[in-house]
Amino acid sequence: MSLGFIALDWGTTRLRGWLIAPDGSVRDEIVSDEGIQVVAADGFAPLLRARLAPWLAADAALPIWMAGMVGSRNGWIEVPYVPAPCSAADLRRGALRHSLDGHDVWLVPGVSCRSDDGFFDVMRGEETLALGAGVSHGLICQPGTHSKWIEMRDGAIASFATFITGEIYAAMSASFIARLAATPVSPEPGASAGRSAAQARGGVLRGLFQARARVLGGTLPAETVKPFISSLLVAEEISGARKLYGAETPTLIAAPPHDGLYSTALGAGARLVTPQMALLEGLKRIRAAA
Amino acid sequence: MSLGFIALDWGTTRLRGWLIAPDGSVRDEIVSDEGIQVVAADGFAPLLRARLAPWLAADAALPIWMAGMVGSRNGWIEVPYVPAPCSAADLRRGALRHSLDGHDVWLVPGVSCRSDDGFFDVMRGEETLALGAGVSHGLICQPGTHSKWIEMRDGAIASFATFITGEIYAAMSASFIARLAATPVSPEPGASAGRSAAQARGGVLRGLFQARARVLGGTLPAETVKPFISSLLVAEEISGARKLYGAETPTLIAAPPHDGLYSTALGAGARLVTPQMALLEGLKRIRAAA
Repeated sequence: MSLGFIALDWGTTRLRGWLIAPDGSVRDEIVSDEGIQVVAADGFAPLLRARLAPWLAADAALPIWMAGMVGSRNGWIEVPYVPAPCSAADLRRGALRHSLDGHDVWLVPGVSCRSDDGFFDVMRGEETLALGAGVSHGLICQPGTHSKWIEMRDGAIASFATFITGEIYAAMSASFIARLAATPVSPEPGASAGRSAAQARGGVLRGLFQARARVLGGTLPAETVKPFISSLLVAEEISGARKLYGAETPTLIAAPPHDGLYSTALGAGARLVTPQMALLEGLKRIRAAA
Repeated sequence: MSLGFIALDWGTTRLRGWLIAPDGSVRDEIVSDEGIQVVAADGFAPLLRARLAPWLAADAALPIWMAGMVGSRNGWIEVPYVPAPCSAADLRRGALRHSLDGHDVWLVPGVSCRSDDGFFDVMRGEETLALGAGVSHGLICQPGTHSKWIEMRDGAIASFATFITGEIYAAMSASFIARLAATPVSPEPGASAGRSAAQARGGVLRGLFQARARVLGGTLPAETVKPFISSLLVAEEISGARKLYGAETPTLIAAPPHDGLYSTALGAGARLVTPQMALLEGLKRIRAAA
């Protein structure tokens, strides 16, 4: 396990790769828009050969570890979900081993979760970041199109829940509600109005219409509509997650603009971890859990 | 007031008109897709002349009464909102009088509402239907893209709230969440699963993701995804409205498919009124309130 490896985060819209030295440091990096949605079924291996050629050539034994939607039905090879609760060792055992020109290729599995209230949930990629966030006992929040809240116990994933905050935000930004929106100058005061509307009676379906009605009524400037909607939705997500997991402040795995938005909404004290650090630490843990 | 009139419901996507006899009965009817969104600013008068020619020619004194988005900024002539609480007489006083080839044209105003929790709200068209639903004291629910819940007191509109249920449903039906959806065969059991998910902890942003996760998990057949989403959203709307207005069962002004969907969700006892009847009765009341 002292050897280096290639770490890949291969998601729906993007491919990122890092060359990890035997001491764990990052030696080189690639970023590309070649997410799985633009790769044909027989295009994964050729694409890796092309993008990773110098790294692969330099060390014929270098293994490749990858996490994300590359292991989904629409990815390269489907890797079955591992059910929560699950540890790094469970993910290591569930990882699928493939080969590329003599290099071992490991695809980390996603995780599924069946809650006692009949809810079923899935994630692919976030499980690896969660294991790399340095949280043994506690909550993790990973904002995004499908935000994940993950409960860690004894260094393992105990349970999790998905909130479609980012997807609703994208849909609302393109919809009738936001036709009156102008480009934001600064997130406040739209953000504070949105957080406050999320507290009001009547729920999020009532709150969201305020993004239109208050502009017509002259109490919400057009350039605050988008911060209003995003802050209302984030507040709704956090409120829902607290009903599931209690009021404990989560560790936040986020990059801009989610880091600022969620830090403000969660209040002081949310520890922030970058997605890159969490992914690399997570892959190291899963590798080492053999 | 014993004279007949022409009643128009001129909304964003549709124009409907009725020739009302002096005794209040419907003598003729037109329906067209010429909603205000396809009419140029100078196109309203010519379009009315063309569509209503036989009715206008038969009686040179026949007035035209219209409600809906035709009185909005993007309509024919903007009619300022009348603030709630407001009666039929208030709407009569707020109506804008115009003229078309010697015929009086009356545009009914929309209504605005400022709640004590800082919420602002608007409607155009629904106020007329509410006044025609035969509800003196009680609640009215008008499902749609922007569902309205209206509180009636002493035959007047006391307050109301908008829920963007239909808009979110349309956005979600076109989004990632619903990519696994197939054409519904029957609304159940997706509908009952959706209603049940709306009761669960974590809120609607968590519930909606179930439309995807449960299909992946094999517990929600693909042809139940759309009924699941619509029933979850309707249950969320009703739950929000009950927090505002209490548990009283509303009178429902709805046509298919909303009538069945909302009747089931509201449970037994919801009185149903058709939109056409409510509009015609509402216009008669407003006219008579001079």
